[in-house]
Amino acid sequence: MRKFLVHAKTFERIEDALKPFADQISPLVLSDEGDLKHPWGESEAKAAIAYGTTDAYFSPAVMTFFTTLFEFEQLDWFQSSAAGTEHPMIQATGKKAALFSGSHEQSHAIAEWVLWAGLDHFQDGAARRRAQENQSWERLPFREISSTSWLIIGFGSIGQESGRRLRALGAHVTGVRRSGGSSEAANEIVTPDKMQAALRNADAVLLSLPLTDATENMADAAFFEAMKSESLFVNVGRGGLVDEAALLAALDTGRLAQASLDVVREEPLSPENEIWRHPQITLTPHIAAQTPQSGLRTDKVFLTNLERFLAGEPLKNGVPMDVFA
Amino acid sequence: MRKFLVHAKTFERIEDALKPFADQISPLVLSDEGDLKHPWGESEAKAAIAYGTTDAYFSPAVMTFFTTLFEFEQLDWFQSSAAGTEHPMIQATGKKAALFSGSHEQSHAIAEWVLWAGLDHFQDGAARRRAQENQSWERLPFREISSTSWLIIGFGSIGQESGRRLRALGAHVTGVRRSGGSSEAANEIVTPDKMQAALRNADAVLLSLPLTDATENMADAAFFEAMKSESLFVNVGRGGLVDEAALLAALDTGRLAQASLDVVREEPLSPENEIWRHPQITLTPHIAAQTPQSGLRTDKVFLTNLERFLAGEPLKNGVPMDVFA
Repeated sequence: MRKFLVHAKTFERIEDALKPFADQISPLVLSDEGDLKHPWGESEAKAAIAYGTTDAYFSPAVMTFFTTLFEFEQLDWFQSSAAGTEHPMIQATGKKAALFSGSHEQSHAIAEWVLWAGLDHFQDGAARRRAQENQSWERLPFREISSTSWLIIGFGSIGQESGRRLRALGAHVTGVRRSGGSSEAANEIVTPDKMQAALRNADAVLLSLPLTDATENMADAAFFEAMKSESLFVNVGRGGLVDEAALLAALDTGRLAQASLDVVREEPLSPENEIWRHPQITLTPHIAAQTPQSGLRTDKVFLTNLERFLAGEPLKNGVPMDVFA
Repeated sequence: MRKFLVHAKTFERIEDALKPFADQISPLVLSDEGDLKHPWGESEAKAAIAYGTTDAYFSPAVMTFFTTLFEFEQLDWFQSSAAGTEHPMIQATGKKAALFSGSHEQSHAIAEWVLWAGLDHFQDGAARRRAQENQSWERLPFREISSTSWLIIGFGSIGQESGRRLRALGAHVTGVRRSGGSSEAANEIVTPDKMQAALRNADAVLLSLPLTDATENMADAAFFEAMKSESLFVNVGRGGLVDEAALLAALDTGRLAQASLDVVREEPLSPENEIWRHPQITLTPHIAAQTPQSGLRTDKVFLTNLERFLAGEPLKNGVPMDVFA
């Protein structure tokens, strides 16, 4: 028997699917109010597993989730709903856990967010909305996304899911990844040393890579200078990838037409920050992965991994434990 | 030799491609100012052909375009950039012409407009924009279009191009067309007698069919009553398909969440019409086909047909002349 720490909203979705494992796991369910309940009865087990989802990560009781976890005597496995492992709490969790698995299921949601941002830019949704507000029958033409060229920097699951959809709509997709090679989600893949040249040909540039020492501030003045003027810059990676002063300067000097950002350096962004009010910036508060569908897909990954874990088999999306070293 | 009536903007795009036919056609080029020029020299030919594009149809000199055309002694062929033939001027043109061909190339642009409208609805772009305006870090979740079910009424080229893209994004697509059958652009095709039942299952309903006596006012109170509440209604067909009073009532009573309209009964819509200001309506002024890419694709159709016409071969997208009877 192992304790199983999970958020109440997540537990509600998967309780039925967990029943076959009732003799092996004892749920410990955290509510947004910070209560911990044992819906199937208490357990004295020292060993535990946990499933961290956005329900927990963005809960008002998030600290209780992690302190409970850190107090377990033995954390045998942690399943995260996120792909990233750089957050300090996740790093600490990984150090405590014997096994750690992630999820790439959010990439489908994020890819839809990217399409939303791309279509609204190339169709100039802002101008359409202004015309409607002014009751002005202005027949504004637009550019088809089928005629645009995208540079996707970071060609992991988010980059691939974005590239796949953009290609299905007829856009030209160039992916940048260290390993090079080819992908059906891109017309071509280039290695990072070719990135600067590729920036010049893109109508839209998407950052979909993790934040590391090597990638921090990669989108700097030289990066924006290399971009085609009138192009679109999209960031669904991390705010720290971008030199925000350089981004604002590029927008103000016409180096860029538009930035669509789901992530910023400071989250939540303070109301005084001019990013909120810049007319060429679309900002959403780190929600590109926030769909019920992401949650349902990740639950399937967890349930698959629960069976594998209990059978002693290798986990899907298992993370090499040295990333927590 | 035949005279060839064309708008100046269109002529500028295709002049080079026309040069091989300089011994068979004599361009007569209309500017937005209403001037008619013979850039390759005047011709006394009685026979003529003409290429009607959005450059001409939405030109301030549109009446000169059609009066010039009606004065030709003999109109051997008219190529239209539009698919529809119901407009009175096009009907009159068809009656005068010996051959008439249309174009479905605008359907790609319209399908992109449909995706823009669909993604902005299911991602609740309006709420995101309000949050940004208020500098409010509200982490609003959204629904993936991959989880939505679409009913596409009228499964011609616009319906098919929309269905193809929606399916590529993972949505479920049901097409309605008289001929039934199946299509790779839909998960299923139903005949119009099954439409009312299908309305109940759709998260989004798209009208993409022509206006005829049989389809006028098809979207009436009973139609909206049959739709799922909280669903999206999209019209890229013609305004006359919709009973607009019934649409407004359905929005106001919560039968529908949102309407996205590129066409309305009165075009241009008068500033007093409440459609402009309804908070659940996105309105664009009949621009869903208005992309440079549409024009370029249609130019290719025209040039293909010019070769065929001069060779006496059947035209691509030839329209049966009895639609002008």
